[in-house]
Amino acid sequence: MNLLREIGPDLSGIEQLRIMRETAKRPGMAETLDIRLVEVDEGRAVFEATPGIHVYNPLGVAHGGFAATVLDFACGYAVLSKLRAGQGFTTLEIKIAYHRAMTSDTGVIRCEGKVVQMGRRAAFTEARLTNTNGDLLASATSSLLIMA
Amino acid sequence: MNLLREIGPDLSGIEQLRIMRETAKRPGMAETLDIRLVEVDEGRAVFEATPGIHVYNPLGVAHGGFAATVLDFACGYAVLSKLRAGQGFTTLEIKIAYHRAMTSDTGVIRCEGKVVQMGRRAAFTEARLTNTNGDLLASATSSLLIMA
Amino acid sequence: MNLLREIGPDLSGIEQLRIMRETAKRPGMAETLDIRLVEVDEGRAVFEATPGIHVYNPLGVAHGGFAATVLDFACGYAVLSKLRAGQGFTTLEIKIAYHRAMTSDTGVIRCEGKVVQMGRRAAFTEARLTNTNGDLLASATSSLLIMA
Amino acid sequence: MNLLREIGPDLSGIEQLRIMRETAKRPGMAETLDIRLVEVDEGRAVFEATPGIHVYNPLGVAHGGFAATVLDFACGYAVLSKLRAGQGFTTLEIKIAYHRAMTSDTGVIRCEGKVVQMGRRAAFTEARLTNTNGDLLASATSSLLIMA
Repeated sequence: MNLLREIGPDLSGIEQLRIMRETAKRPGMAETLDIRLVEVDEGRAVFEATPGIHVYNPLGVAHGGFAATVLDFACGYAVLSKLRAGQGFTTLEIKIAYHRAMTSDTGVIRCEGKVVQMGRRAAFTEARLTNTNGDLLASATSSLLIMA
Repeated sequence: MNLLREIGPDLSGIEQLRIMRETAKRPGMAETLDIRLVEVDEGRAVFEATPGIHVYNPLGVAHGGFAATVLDFACGYAVLSKLRAGQGFTTLEIKIAYHRAMTSDTGVIRCEGKVVQMGRRAAFTEARLTNTNGDLLASATSSLLIMA
Repeated sequence: MNLLREIGPDLSGIEQLRIMRETAKRPGMAETLDIRLVEVDEGRAVFEATPGIHVYNPLGVAHGGFAATVLDFACGYAVLSKLRAGQGFTTLEIKIAYHRAMTSDTGVIRCEGKVVQMGRRAAFTEARLTNTNGDLLASATSSLLIMA
Repeated sequence: MNLLREIGPDLSGIEQLRIMRETAKRPGMAETLDIRLVEVDEGRAVFEATPGIHVYNPLGVAHGGFAATVLDFACGYAVLSKLRAGQGFTTLEIKIAYHRAMTSDTGVIRCEGKVVQMGRRAAFTEARLTNTNGDLLASATSSLLIMA
């Protein structure tokens, strides 16, 4: 169930991501919450998803974990897009800020992740989640460890 | 789809939480990821869940968004447990640290959230997510806004 | 020792900030670490400072607390610039990411804070700290409480 | 101006820290803000300091950068206490939560940092800052990179 290994362990990160985008192959969490990779460049990844009542919290709006998941995907794939074949990564931490609530009326949301700074051992990323009007709904910053 | 309103808008937070725990009524996100409220006290909430491949990331371990969701539930419900009838809350931000990876071999994970400090307008919480051996897998701190 | 009250409790935040910048009146911490307010607009504040050995950590580079202080100033004053007379604010939390070390060879550093989103009760800000080449040295995101 | 190298580059972290505590040798930032290392054990470091008007913000209370500096010291030295001779560390990020304001009436504050989880490449720490009554004034979590 290691999707990157299945797609091609000898490919660079951006090659793996392009195959994932083109074939719509995605890991369990993206399937479960229907989160779609729609763009990928070096140091940048964009996702789309649609909040519905299946991701609600008890207050009648989308649970923070929904935004957290989409933002984490965007941060992680932005780093993956800059890895050479054989390199790995793991997320150390992510901070998510919730700017505006999402409901099933929000429609499609878009989330863009970017690499802020990347060294040999660690990478810093940020991501912004917006509605179709471009309003900022949530944002994140994340630190990741690069291996080998 | 506002579960708290449905359960009883005139109840205190801890009364609403006790009904949720006893009746197993839970919001969409808890249903989708099968996250269960198992204990609730004033200023404290405990959840359980089981990571499976339906929450995997492309690296073959549970996606960070899974831990983020469980930790956010624990932080939010810990605050809810201290609210009077009529008060509301919203999460401003949460930071999640990932200490050890989870897989479908991890089994049941347990997540305890606690209120660290609470004033009239804002609350601070923390939560820890552990496996059945008590190893710390992930942790979070969160700031929430209280609305009179 | 409440500088804002001394400058003019009946002024708006941006009026107070303009007086602070023009008169070089600054609070104790800005004096102690020689942190200078150099620009202020609605929703934006820019500081300058110079790291020296008086702010070093035991590793021979500027202590994280130096960047944290400058970034916190930038986040706080960006929010202050949008407050009406009589409104107050307090910082709930700040996260700082350290991208590149600073030493006494770094020279003048510049730090720009901006309001990301602001409601009646809470504000979100971000700030970036750069050297004279524009390299990103540290960055922050912060949540603040607004008091009517 | 690399204090650790001066004290003994061939010593383990805890040996360096014990010399720093016994000789009161401290880096520039600790001197500038008068922050004192008072206890050190494996995986734990405790500091004391006294907020005065020299660390004030314009609102008439201690600037967030003061707490941030003390908390960062506690997190960093807790990790240092677990390093072997020759290993290095750098802070990737720290999040600080501000629970109660400090003034020149607060008196001596105490700050304890602890290692939460430490692997070969990264460490997670937390720190709590309290007054002499034991009230929690501020807290932090931090991620650090370990270098061979």
